[in-house]
Amino acid sequence: MIIMGIDPGFAITGYGIIRYEGNRFAVEEYGAILTETNDSFPERLRILNSRIKELIKLYNPDAFAIEELFFNKNIKTAINAAQGRGAAIVAAADCGIDIFEYTPLQVKQAIAGYGRAEKSQVQQMVKIILNLEEIPKPDDIADALAVAICHAHSYRMNNIFINNFKK
Amino acid sequence: MIIMGIDPGFAITGYGIIRYEGNRFAVEEYGAILTETNDSFPERLRILNSRIKELIKLYNPDAFAIEELFFNKNIKTAINAAQGRGAAIVAAADCGIDIFEYTPLQVKQAIAGYGRAEKSQVQQMVKIILNLEEIPKPDDIADALAVAICHAHSYRMNNIFINNFKK
Repeated sequence: MIIMGIDPGFAITGYGIIRYEGNRFAVEEYGAILTETNDSFPERLRILNSRIKELIKLYNPDAFAIEELFFNKNIKTAINAAQGRGAAIVAAADCGIDIFEYTPLQVKQAIAGYGRAEKSQVQQMVKIILNLEEIPKPDDIADALAVAICHAHSYRMNNIFINNFKK
Repeated sequence: MIIMGIDPGFAITGYGIIRYEGNRFAVEEYGAILTETNDSFPERLRILNSRIKELIKLYNPDAFAIEELFFNKNIKTAINAAQGRGAAIVAAADCGIDIFEYTPLQVKQAIAGYGRAEKSQVQQMVKIILNLEEIPKPDDIADALAVAICHAHSYRMNNIFINNFKK
């Protein structure tokens, strides 16, 4: 299956598209959607939404996994990121793709085995799991790949549960 | 000109569509888009986005005026409303309509003449300006109509300025 992971934001939205088959991971593509401060706020949301639709059409993922927002800092940043997240989710929903949401805790648990892992540990794990030469920069990309891996783990766990249940 | 005003939200998004010609106001339509708690979060955003697109196609407004979010209360509510606002703005941007954003302060100043007006005063003014028999309920609708009126005022003031400037 192909999974698209998203680390939502407004000025910068990380994305990572991975292939997960037979417990093996391969990276299809990753990057960041940047919106320009010269553009108006609505135009930036439109570009973000439209870029995600293009990526979905190009890679045709089976699942769209997006991190939930967790904020205890700047409310203005939180509100902008949330509007970007809304624009991203609408893109996926319009394409009819299955959407899955994971909290930062769930992502950390899936990648590093425990929820209090440091950000740098999670990024190192992403690099190892996906067999990358370097940790992708900016952080938003590694975070997006982490959400995609988290969905693969969650999908596998569900399948194990369902298969055992059937026996 | 026809103006669509939006009071953004997630569970409930108020809208008001008004006609503004020769300093006179007429109401075309108003209402609230409700999203169901039974539906998933992405599905609720999709419905909100798609309902706004339908309204734009139906009434073909010249301008889309949306209130900025102001929050000092629950961060969870703020983040959900912001995601709804993102979905709403993307709908308007996709339709190619001009988008205008106003702060709650600007809306109050435009409607009631000063920025510290009470919510109930703003609502009474909306009723009077639009010649309505009653204040529309829920509050989100009256707030959406207020943003639309605010845009009309702002548009008129800009025209006065431009005309004086040309002389």
